[in-house]
Formats: sequence, C-alpha cells, structure tokens
Amino acid sequence: MTHAHTPAFTLEELAERLGATLIGDGRRRVSGLATLSEAGPEDITFLANRAYLKYLPETRAAAVLLHPGQAEECPTACLTLENPYLGYAALSRLFDPLIGRQAPGTHPTAVVADGVVLGRDVEIGPQAVIEAGVELGDGVVVGPGSVIGADTRIGAGSRLHANVTVCHGVVIGERAILHSGCVIGGDGFGFAHDGGRWHKIAQLGGVVLGDDVEVGSCSSIDRGALGDTLIGNDVKIDSQVQIAHNVQIGDHSALAGCVGIAGSTKVGQHCLLGGGVGLSGHLTICDGVQVTGMSLVTNSIHEPGVYSSGTGAMSNAQWRKNAVRFKQLDALAKRLARLEKAQESR
Amino acid sequence: MTHAHTPAFTLEELAERLGATLIGDGRRRVSGLATLSEAGPEDITFLANRAYLKYLPETRAAAVLLHPGQAEECPTACLTLENPYLGYAALSRLFDPLIGRQAPGTHPTAVVADGVVLGRDVEIGPQAVIEAGVELGDGVVVGPGSVIGADTRIGAGSRLHANVTVCHGVVIGERAILHSGCVIGGDGFGFAHDGGRWHKIAQLGGVVLGDDVEVGSCSSIDRGALGDTLIGNDVKIDSQVQIAHNVQIGDHSALAGCVGIAGSTKVGQHCLLGGGVGLSGHLTICDGVQVTGMSLVTNSIHEPGVYSSGTGAMSNAQWRKNAVRFKQLDALAKRLARLEKAQESR
Amino acid sequence: MTHAHTPAFTLEELAERLGATLIGDGRRRVSGLATLSEAGPEDITFLANRAYLKYLPETRAAAVLLHPGQAEECPTACLTLENPYLGYAALSRLFDPLIGRQAPGTHPTAVVADGVVLGRDVEIGPQAVIEAGVELGDGVVVGPGSVIGADTRIGAGSRLHANVTVCHGVVIGERAILHSGCVIGGDGFGFAHDGGRWHKIAQLGGVVLGDDVEVGSCSSIDRGALGDTLIGNDVKIDSQVQIAHNVQIGDHSALAGCVGIAGSTKVGQHCLLGGGVGLSGHLTICDGVQVTGMSLVTNSIHEPGVYSSGTGAMSNAQWRKNAVRFKQLDALAKRLARLEKAQESR
Repeated sequence: MTHAHTPAFTLEELAERLGATLIGDGRRRVSGLATLSEAGPEDITFLANRAYLKYLPETRAAAVLLHPGQAEECPTACLTLENPYLGYAALSRLFDPLIGRQAPGTHPTAVVADGVVLGRDVEIGPQAVIEAGVELGDGVVVGPGSVIGADTRIGAGSRLHANVTVCHGVVIGERAILHSGCVIGGDGFGFAHDGGRWHKIAQLGGVVLGDDVEVGSCSSIDRGALGDTLIGNDVKIDSQVQIAHNVQIGDHSALAGCVGIAGSTKVGQHCLLGGGVGLSGHLTICDGVQVTGMSLVTNSIHEPGVYSSGTGAMSNAQWRKNAVRFKQLDALAKRLARLEKAQESR
Repeated sequence: MTHAHTPAFTLEELAERLGATLIGDGRRRVSGLATLSEAGPEDITFLANRAYLKYLPETRAAAVLLHPGQAEECPTACLTLENPYLGYAALSRLFDPLIGRQAPGTHPTAVVADGVVLGRDVEIGPQAVIEAGVELGDGVVVGPGSVIGADTRIGAGSRLHANVTVCHGVVIGERAILHSGCVIGGDGFGFAHDGGRWHKIAQLGGVVLGDDVEVGSCSSIDRGALGDTLIGNDVKIDSQVQIAHNVQIGDHSALAGCVGIAGSTKVGQHCLLGGGVGLSGHLTICDGVQVTGMSLVTNSIHEPGVYSSGTGAMSNAQWRKNAVRFKQLDALAKRLARLEKAQESR
Repeated sequence: MTHAHTPAFTLEELAERLGATLIGDGRRRVSGLATLSEAGPEDITFLANRAYLKYLPETRAAAVLLHPGQAEECPTACLTLENPYLGYAALSRLFDPLIGRQAPGTHPTAVVADGVVLGRDVEIGPQAVIEAGVELGDGVVVGPGSVIGADTRIGAGSRLHANVTVCHGVVIGERAILHSGCVIGGDGFGFAHDGGRWHKIAQLGGVVLGDDVEVGSCSSIDRGALGDTLIGNDVKIDSQVQIAHNVQIGDHSALAGCVGIAGSTKVGQHCLLGGGVGLSGHLTICDGVQVTGMSLVTNSIHEPGVYSSGTGAMSNAQWRKNAVRFKQLDALAKRLARLEKAQESR
C-alpha cells in the first residue's frame, strides 16, 4: 500500500508523545512503522511478544519500541515502555495516513436535508445523504455514499467510512468508527404468527451506541422492537456480526467476526466473544465471560470464566467414525450402566 | 429514538381498527406504544405472555391490550382480543413513524434510465439508480443510494431501504421489505475445475421473490445458474443470511440471522430455521421442519418436526476433557462392545 | 429473468468457439442455454453428470453438449467434448447478457478525483466515487454507487458490481469480479488492552488481490495491521465470507459462503473450505486441504486431505438425549476404563 501521505517523526518526538524513554540519537527521523523482521532503516518497529525476540538482533529498523528489560539486547536505538504493545497502538495511530486526509466541508454531490445540525469541521463525502433532523457533532466524517436516516444523532469525532447506513432515530456517541457496509438500525426480526402466516411487528425502538464504539465491515445492529438496542461504551464489534433487536452489550466488551446474538440477550461488561459464536435469545451473560470461537450458548451464564462448545476438526475418516457414535451416545451410556450393575451384583 | 412523527389515536379508534372490545373511556388519547413496565400515561401497552402478568397491576399505561380472560385484573382501560400478540403487531404498525413519511416523487439526484415504468406514488430517494427496463409497481419506495439493475420488476407496495442492491433481471412481488445492505441477485458460486484452475460459470438465472417477503440487513440471495432462485410468498429472512443459487424456499417459512443455505437445496413451507443454521446443497427439507440454532443439516429431511445438532457451551475446563474424548468415541464404543461380549461369554 | 439481450449463435459457431466436435446441422441457431429437462427448441443444453442421463432421450433442446461416449444416445444434434462441464462453463459465458451491456465512459453523476488514471474503455457507473490517486486498468467496470478509496489500483478487465466498497491503498489484479455489498480493505480488528479499555491499533497494511479473484456479495476482506492481507491468483470467495487482517490465501483456493478466517492464518493453494467453516488465527493450512461445511479448525494442518468437525442434525428428541451425554463423556470413559481394569484383574 501507499506510504505517500505518512508523516515523519524524530525519535525524540516519538519518545515524548508516547511517554517512552529514549536510548540513542533523538534526532534520527523515521517515516514508517513495520514489523521487526520487515522494518528498514527508515522505520521504527516494536517488540511486544517474546516469540519475536529472535528477530531483534538482526533488525534493520532505525529504532525499536520495547520493554526496558530488553533494551540491552537491542542492536539499535530504542524507546522503552512498560507496555510496548500499548505503545505500538499509539505509534500506529501516529502513522495512520487517514489522519492527515480529513477535509472539512460538504461535497457538492452530497444531499443534506434542510435543518440538519452540523458541528464544526464536519466532512460529508460525495454522494452521501443526510436526512431531516440529523445532528452531527464536531469533526464527524461521513464517507462517500453513506446514508444517515432522519432524526439520528452522531457524537463528535465519529467517522463513518464509505457506504455505511445508519437508519432513522439512531443515537451514536463520540469517536465511533463505522466501517463500510455496516448497517445500524435496520428492523429487528419480529412477527406475530396467525392463520398460517406472518404479521409484521413494526420495530419502533432505536439503537443507542455509547462512546468509542467500533463496528466492522458488513455488520448489522438491528433496532429495538419497543425499547432500544443498547451498545455500551468502548464496545468493539468486528466484521460480519449480527446483533438482533433489544440486545444489550456492556461496556468494554469485544465481539469477533461472524458473531450472532439473538433478540433481547444481555451481554455484560468486559466480555469477549470469539469468532462465529452464537448466543440464543433472552439470555443474560454476566460480566467477564469469554466464549471461544464458534461456540453456541443456549443458557444464561452467571459466573465469569471461559466457555466453549463443539469439537475441533480431525481427518474426515476419523471424524466419520466418531460422529456416527455421537448418535449412539445415549445408548452407549446405558449399556455401560448395565455392565456396571452386572459387575456390582456379582 | 424520536417520537416526533408518531400519530395519536383515541382508544375508541384503536378498538375499531383492531376489532377489539373496549373497556373504559374511549375518548382517551394515546400517542405511543411501550412495554407494560415502561409505558407511561400517554401510552398504550399490551400483555401477550403470562410471564409479564406480574407487571400488570402497576402499569402506568393509559390502556392495555390483552386477552379477555385477564381484563378483570387490569387496573386501567383495556382493549380485549383473543390473540393479543397479533393485536400488538397491528398496533405497532399504526405507530410506525415511517408510515407518514412517504413522499412520492423522484429525487433530483436519482438516476432513472429512460423507459423505466413507474406506478403511481412511487418514491425514489436521493442518489438511487434505476437501470433500463425496470418496472416499479404503485407505491414502491426506493431508499437513498439503492440500485436496481436492468429489467428488474418490483411489485406494488414494496419498500427498499437505503443502500439496497437488486441486480438485473430479478422479480420481486408485492409488499416486499428489503433492508439496507442486502443484495438480491448477485452471482451464484459456480465454477468448472480444469487444469488446476477455476473456470467461471456465468450465472444466467435470476431470483424470484413472492409477495410479502422481507429480507434483513446485509443478507444476500444469489441468482440461479440456469433456472431461478425461488423465494415463496410470506417468507421472512433475517439479517446476515446467505441463500445460494437455485435454492427454493416454500411459502411462510422464516430464516433467522446468519443462516446459510447451499446451492439447489429446497426448503418446504412453514419451516423455521434458527440462527446460524447451515443446510448443505442439493437437499430437500419437507414442509413443517424446524431446525434449532447453529445446527448443520447434511441430509434431506422427510418428516416434519424439530431437528438439532451440536453441543451447548460449558465451562472450558469441562469442555476440554469431554471434547478430547469425542475423538476417542469410536474406540470407546468398541471397548464397550468387547466388555459386553466378555460378560456374555461367562 | 429477461432474455432480451442474449445473443444467438449457430451450432457451427459454438463448436468452433468451444473446440467441440459437431454432429448435426451446423446452421441451426440457438439463442439460449438451459438444463436438459427445461431446454426448448431454441436452446442448447449440456450433460455433464450421469445422474441426468435419464433426461437425455426426451430433451426438446436444439442441441446437447456432452461427452463423445454419450453422443449415440442423443436424440438431437450434439457437440462433443472430453470435459462437458468445462464446455458448459464456456457456453454460459457466451450467453451472459452482461457481456454486451458494457458502455465505456464515465456517468455524469460519478465523482472522479483529479489525476485518477483510467485505462482504455473504462466504464464508471452513476453515483460512483473514485478518490485521488486511483488507477484503473483497461476495460475496468465500476458499478453504480461503488466507491474506490485513494491510491487503490485495479487491474485490466476487472468488474465491480453495484455498491461495492474498495478502501484506500488496495491492489487488485486483472479480471477480478467483486459482487455487490462486498468490502475490500476495511480495518482489521486490532486493539491493545490497557487499564480496562481498548486502544485502537491503526491498520496500516493494505489488501492485495491477485489476478482472477472473485469475491461474493456482502463479503469482507480486512486490511493488514502492518503488512498486507494477501489473496492469491484464481482464488474464489463466495458470499458472506469474512477474511481478517494479514490472512494469506494461496492460489486456486475456493471458500464457500459464510466462511470466517481469523487474523494471520495462512491457507495454502488448492484448498477448499466448505460453507460456514471457521479457521482460528495464526494457523498454517497446507496446500490441498479440504474442510467440510461448518467445521472449526483450531490447529494447523500439515497433511493434505479432508477434515471435518461437528455432528450432523438429528431429531431434537434423539439429539437431547445424546447431547446431554456429551457433557458426561469424560466420566463415561473413566467408568469404562474402571470396568476394564476390574475385568482384567479377574
């Protein structure tokens, strides 16, 4: 990818911005961030995982961000920090080429309804549509082709990438990041069944996203049936995730790709849902629960901890033999109990 | 969310529209619909599930829609109906703020090809694109940024929300609701394999949706390879669903979020597929089948009923011990049989 | 669907284009392609699977494409080829109505930044947005409402359908096909955890797609954290697929619908992932691996072959009895071992 717009920093500047201790020549300039094994003489790199320590002696980087305990092994300049992975996060944002590209103003092809309230330095991209009653906070960026439905409010510093859809009556906090193709506030899936057919229940609730929420590409968060679907502060949602109506997600929880959560389930704070996890509807998952990838949760969870289901892949030949036995499992257990009884009675 | 555009009704009007029996002052006016525990004095609420009966005595609602058998316990005005959940569905549609917002006409930024046939009161939103040969029935709404490919026909009363894509040569019945980000008529996944590489099979079929079909946010229904992909009348499809080429879904079936159906599988009428269910290709699922969440169906089903697979989540420590035994299951079964034989021979 | 724009060919022309041997009247004209049982007298059809041989005697088609060994049983004109399924693929592309519809030029409503480099015969549809620094090769088609981010390069002959999003700094090879709603280059899911909250790691890598890649509707391929996410040549990706940051997919691999691949996993060449398969992060899957539908792979795979996990659906009553035993599996195995020991000691 392009590095054309990435900025350059002296090591001294970086140490100051990160609150790191500098060892080496502070006037040296770096213009990129790369991994230990791929960094060149214009780059800064980082060491946050001992598994990569083997690459440290041969790094060609101008400088390495690492833990003070590893500074002695570093063949070049270094910035030391107690949590170098957090330092990497900060560095990555300094080198983000999107930062310098913001261009406040409304593109002439965007359609903005009368009476929309725009904060300072709002950027509205080409072909975007902002319906009546919308309020956008300071510095909000609306990407090309994105649509914001009537009466929606988006807090300061939030960014909608291209082709995002936020439906009517949604509330989004500050510093949200919504990736392309995601949809916030589509109808929940609600029908009354009568006479052999479905009768739609209009979804009259909304969606409320807290501050610092991120939603991945092509994810969907449905609006509530009556009350709102509620996503807490600092909730991070990956791509291809589905959150049904009236779900609640507590602050600081993270949902990996392809997670699906059925209606009215409440997930606590600081929960981690692995990729492809499914939660049934109307459950309560307490704070501090971690569910491993592709597990199905059909009951509420009241104790923090790690939960799992399923069986990992094996060779198809081995799997066939075992999977067929799964269907006999209850029968096998009964035969086992019979044998035990026979033995006891002897 | 906003209530700015929601209408107000007298209880008398509501009783009449719902065919309900009114007990109380028919001139009282309500302007909102809310749950039993959250409704205020301007709202009507409903009781459709005995689990919520405990909230009835303290409700602050102006009126409650409920079964005649519970009218005596109601502390306020009530509307009685044999099926109060169906009544709630009807009420919800009366309070839907989208209803009053329709604004027939074509937005000046929309691009509509020459010769497109528009029924009466069609609304085409900003930045929408309607290609050549399209026909839209009376009252069709095309949301902002939606694209309708060449030669597609959409029946009267259908609504496409924002950023919907309907590809060329698709037929959609009346009163369809297509949510944002869904794609109807993308190519099916078909390739011939030869010489170590893939050779594309052009997908020449279309997609036909019956009347009263709803498709959720970010769902995709692929076009057929030669014949059409067929979705029956009154089929309800949730968000993040994938329907492959030449699938057929019978009338009145409902598919929850994240369902995936592989090519050429036929699902009967009145089927219910739970969230995340996967159906292999070329299967036949008869009428009246229900499959529970995240089950994998690899064989045809010929008897109505409920079907399941998988194992629910447990603590990771417990799961690890059991999951490892799954790989030994065939061996365990053989050891059990050996013991039984030994016992018999004694 | 419409056949209005489909071309007509003589059998002689078709035989020549396919390199097939013609038996029958070469001047006969066909204007459509259909299945053996549905083809009419204006159509050509094909027989590639012995299961359909029973339909051959009664076909009403003008001609049948089939293996030379079956020519004798064909009641009408035929074109013979060693690999008739490959011949069907070639035929399907000849009858593709999209082929004749290309209309080079930039629609007046498209927004194309200054300095964008366009090859010959590029078509940019209505409401599309092309940001600064983009390069589009000869014959590239950008569908209505699609957005191409800054500094992205797309190779000759590639087609983006409607409402596709390609983010900044992405590289796409020649002859790619990107279906509606897909997103290439959204942020990967990366955060440092500190002080009980998440700190975003800017995703500075890009996405590189090789030549002849196809990506289905609503699929997402995330950009790399530092290096690029790499998709090889001739990789075919179905709808609703999620590919996380820094994943690598080898040439000629195919991923069915709803597959999810977690970060940094490397999939080899000629791999086949069934629908709904999940791969954990940081794995290595060697060349020639096939994983059956909805399997979860949590360990690297070093031997080519077929792999599976999970258990197929059964009746819910049967399933309940067996699934509850799964939680006792380790205990059952221990009880079995105890019985065996008791027997041995006798």
